[in-house]
Amino acid sequence: MEETQGVVKHLLLTRFKEDIHPQQIDELIKGYADLVDQIEPMKAFHWGTDVSAENLHQGFTHVFESTFESVEGIAEYVKHPVHVEFADKFLSALDKVVVVDYKPTVLKP
Amino acid sequence: MEETQGVVKHLLLTRFKEDIHPQQIDELIKGYADLVDQIEPMKAFHWGTDVSAENLHQGFTHVFESTFESVEGIAEYVKHPVHVEFADKFLSALDKVVVVDYKPTVLKP
Repeated sequence: MEETQGVVKHLLLTRFKEDIHPQQIDELIKGYADLVDQIEPMKAFHWGTDVSAENLHQGFTHVFESTFESVEGIAEYVKHPVHVEFADKFLSALDKVVVVDYKPTVLKP
Repeated sequence: MEETQGVVKHLLLTRFKEDIHPQQIDELIKGYADLVDQIEPMKAFHWGTDVSAENLHQGFTHVFESTFESVEGIAEYVKHPVHVEFADKFLSALDKVVVVDYKPTVLKP
């Protein structure tokens, strides 16, 4: 289990609306990254753009992965006023989003 | 960038078909995990089930995340005979799948 013990990942796959300019996207990503310093239960943030070659991305172009210590931490984050304000802006810039939370494990079932 | 430097994540969100039994799902997950020992460029494997409460999961129930050192490594993995054989079985058990590859970064744009 190593580094992932007890960790819960909050994962978003997104596509931005066509009329959202690259500079606005950059600002939204910066705003997302800035949440780590403002919302205590959010422990880490990583993002990246899709570079897959298999053509199974279903139109998703960006991945956002944040790390928490518990599902309760995610609930606290979701309700946090700073997140609520950011999420309003962020979600309104998307035309496609899926959000899953999971506890990454290497254990075989 | 720490631990994620140079890493490429291969991420699947899936939902299994309704007629796939839990035991078959367990076997498929074990088969997926076993690829790490058989396909050199695949460096790590983690999986988990969705525990989100926001109801934005779009029906996806499982997350599979494997780690590579490069996009070339993913291409090698995708073509590897052991993967091809496994993927045939695995994908045929799914009624929903999205696959994205991304280089996780903490860098702000």
